[in-house]
Amino acid sequence: MATPKTSKQELLAVLNSVLGKSAGSPIALHEPNIGDHENELVAKCLSSGWVSSVGQYITEFETGLAKFTKAAHVIAIVNGTAALHLALHAVGVKPGDEVIVPTLSFVATANSVSHCGAIPHFVDSDGDALGLDPIALRAHLSANTSIKDNQLFNTKTGRRISALVPMHTFGHPMQIAKLVEVASEFKLTIVEDAAESLGSFVGNAHTGTFGKCGVLSFNGNKTITTGGGGAILTNDAELAKKIRHLATTAKLAHDWEYIHDAVAFNYRMPNINAALGCAQLDRLDSFLEAKRKLATKYSEAFAECDTLSFVAEPNGTTSNYWLNTIRLNTPDLQTRDELLSAARADGYLCRPAWNLLHTLPMYLDAPRANLPVAQKLWQSLINIPSSARHCLGDI
Amino acid sequence: MATPKTSKQELLAVLNSVLGKSAGSPIALHEPNIGDHENELVAKCLSSGWVSSVGQYITEFETGLAKFTKAAHVIAIVNGTAALHLALHAVGVKPGDEVIVPTLSFVATANSVSHCGAIPHFVDSDGDALGLDPIALRAHLSANTSIKDNQLFNTKTGRRISALVPMHTFGHPMQIAKLVEVASEFKLTIVEDAAESLGSFVGNAHTGTFGKCGVLSFNGNKTITTGGGGAILTNDAELAKKIRHLATTAKLAHDWEYIHDAVAFNYRMPNINAALGCAQLDRLDSFLEAKRKLATKYSEAFAECDTLSFVAEPNGTTSNYWLNTIRLNTPDLQTRDELLSAARADGYLCRPAWNLLHTLPMYLDAPRANLPVAQKLWQSLINIPSSARHCLGDI
Repeated sequence: MATPKTSKQELLAVLNSVLGKSAGSPIALHEPNIGDHENELVAKCLSSGWVSSVGQYITEFETGLAKFTKAAHVIAIVNGTAALHLALHAVGVKPGDEVIVPTLSFVATANSVSHCGAIPHFVDSDGDALGLDPIALRAHLSANTSIKDNQLFNTKTGRRISALVPMHTFGHPMQIAKLVEVASEFKLTIVEDAAESLGSFVGNAHTGTFGKCGVLSFNGNKTITTGGGGAILTNDAELAKKIRHLATTAKLAHDWEYIHDAVAFNYRMPNINAALGCAQLDRLDSFLEAKRKLATKYSEAFAECDTLSFVAEPNGTTSNYWLNTIRLNTPDLQTRDELLSAARADGYLCRPAWNLLHTLPMYLDAPRANLPVAQKLWQSLINIPSSARHCLGDI
Repeated sequence: MATPKTSKQELLAVLNSVLGKSAGSPIALHEPNIGDHENELVAKCLSSGWVSSVGQYITEFETGLAKFTKAAHVIAIVNGTAALHLALHAVGVKPGDEVIVPTLSFVATANSVSHCGAIPHFVDSDGDALGLDPIALRAHLSANTSIKDNQLFNTKTGRRISALVPMHTFGHPMQIAKLVEVASEFKLTIVEDAAESLGSFVGNAHTGTFGKCGVLSFNGNKTITTGGGGAILTNDAELAKKIRHLATTAKLAHDWEYIHDAVAFNYRMPNINAALGCAQLDRLDSFLEAKRKLATKYSEAFAECDTLSFVAEPNGTTSNYWLNTIRLNTPDLQTRDELLSAARADGYLCRPAWNLLHTLPMYLDAPRANLPVAQKLWQSLINIPSSARHCLGDI
C-alpha cells in the first residue's frame, strides 16, 4: 500500500498536470486576454477623439451588457467600488445606517458602505455556495432586529439597517432567491454584488439581476476587463435614471448653463475604457467556455485527491468559474499557508480567500453575527490559476 | 461717424477672424488632440496585458508630471473629483467640518467636500485673477471665525473649518502666495485645485505646488487628457505615502494575505489611461505653445472691442490659457445669454462661467461670505473656443 500523498503533493501534482510546468515567469491567478480586436476598437476610439465621459462605446458597452445579462438598464461606471457606492447611495442608504454584508468578501464590499457614511454589519456564509447564508441571516435578524414603520432597526445599536449586499463569491452563484425572500421579510433593499460573476446564472437569470440593482466589475483580474471599470444593472427605470444622473454630476440638460441639482459624482466610465470593454464583451462567450473547460479539468483532477476538494458550481446554477477554488478537507491555516508557499515556489500564483472583513482594524467595532462558517472557509479555501488562456486553444 | 458695434457684432467678428468660419460641425470649446503617438503607446499598453491598476505607464506618467511640475511626489488618480476627495480626506478633513471653497468654480470643488461628509463654505473671487480673493477671505475669516487649540472655528455654526480649496480658474493663476499667508494665519490646510491649470505657473513655480497638496485633472476637455483622470501633487513625502496607500484599498504588502488597515478607495488611474497620458504629456509643450498663440490672437482682436475685454494672465504669472475668457465690460446676464445664443447659432460653442455654487439647490443652506465680485463675474464671463489645434499649425 502506497504512502498517502500530502496536501502539498496533491496540489502541486494537479497544477502541474492541468497547467503544465511553470517556466520563466510565474503563472498568474487571472490574466486579461487582449488581442487584435481590442486594439482595433481602442484605436478607433482614439482616432474619434471621443475618449472621455461621452461616446459611442459607452452606449454600446451598456447595450451589450444589457443584452447579455437581460437587465433592463445598465450604467457603465468607473470601477466596481464606485458602482457599489453609487448603487447604495441611490437606493437610499444614509449616513448612520447599517448595511448587511458578508464578512467573507473583498474589502470593497464593506468600504462602499463606509463611503455612504454607513456601517457594515457582518454576517456568515453558506459553506457550499460561499455566499451569504439565508438561514443564518434570518436567524440573526430575527434575534437582533425589529421592524418599525416598515423599516428595520438593530435592537442593540438602535440604528436603521437599510440594505443587504450579498456577494457571488469567486463567481459561484449564491442562494440569491432565498436571500430575496429574507430581504423582503425584513424590509431590506438588496444591492447585489456581482463584481465577480459576469457570466454566472441561476437557472437562466443572470447574477446581479435579482436585487433592486446589481454591480459588475471589469478590473484587470476579472473575466473581462476595461482597465478599471464597473457597471450597475437594474430593472427599475426610475432608479436607472437617478443613477445615470448622479454618476455625472447631476447636471440638468441645458445648452450652456451649469445647474446641478444634487451632490453627485464623477463616476462614469470613460469611452476609451468602454471601447476595450466592447471588444472584450465580443469575446466573453469564448472566455467563459475556456474557463469552464479549465474548471472541468481541475474538477476531474481534484476528484482523485484525498485531502483537497474542488468547489463546484451549486446545483441549478452556472458559474463563470472566475477563480477556481479548492478547499482543504480539514480547515487549517498553517496547512493553507504551506500550500500557498509551495505553489508560489513552483511558479503558480495561488491565493487564499480574503482575511475576514470583521477582523480588519477599521471594522473591529462593526456589528456582526456569529461567523463560524466564514471562519472555516477562510482557513480552508485556496484560489488557483484561472485564466481563460489555459484552455482557449481547446475550444 | 460709424454706428458703434453691438457686443454680438464684436464677438462674432473676432471669432470669425481668429477661428475662421465654422463649417459643418460646430467648433467645440476644447477638443482633445490625439494622434499616432497616443495610438502607439496605448497599443503597447494593450499588448503588454497590463491595462489595470498596475503598470509601467502609471509610473512613467507620474514621473513625467513630477518633472514638469517640479512636485516631489505625484499620484495618478482615476479623475479630478476623486483626486480632490482623496486629497481632502488625506489632509484630515472630517465629517461635519467646513471647508472654504470659491463659489465661482465647477461643482466638483464643492462636491468633493461633501464626499468627505463636510460642508462647503463659499467665499468671493478676485475680479482680476478670477480665483479666491485673499483680501476678502481675510476680512471674512476675521469677522466670522476664532482659533482655539490651533484650529479654526466658524463662530456662527460652531463647526471646525479645516481646509481651504482655492481654484485656478480657467487656467489663470490666482494670488496663491497671498492665500498661503492667509491660510497660515488662520490655521487652514490648503488643497489647491489646479484641475484646470496644468502648464500654469506663478513665476517658475507650477500651480498646485503651493498648498499642502494640489490636484490636476485630465478629463477630455482639459489641456491634456487620459480619457478620465487626475493627479495629486505634494512635496510632503509622508502625505504622498498615505495618499498612495488610501488610493489602492490600503492593502498591506504581503505575498497573499488581504490585510487592509483603513477604510480606503479604488481611486488609482488604470495603466491604459496612463499610457494615453504619457503620450499626451510628450506633446504638452506644443499644446501650451499653440494655446498661447491662440490667446495672443484673441487678445489682439478683443483689444479693438468697446464692449468686451479679453481676460489676460495676471502679472507675474504664466497661464496655460486652458479656456480663453472674455468679459462684458458691463455685467449683464441678458446680454451674456444673447451672446451665447448668437455664437452657438454661428457654430461657435461658447459657454458662461458656472452657476455660482451657493445658488445650487443642494448648497442653498451652506455658509457663505458676501459674494459681490463672483456675482458680477458670473454675469459677465464667457469662455470661447480654445483647442490647441487652432494654432498647432502655426508653431
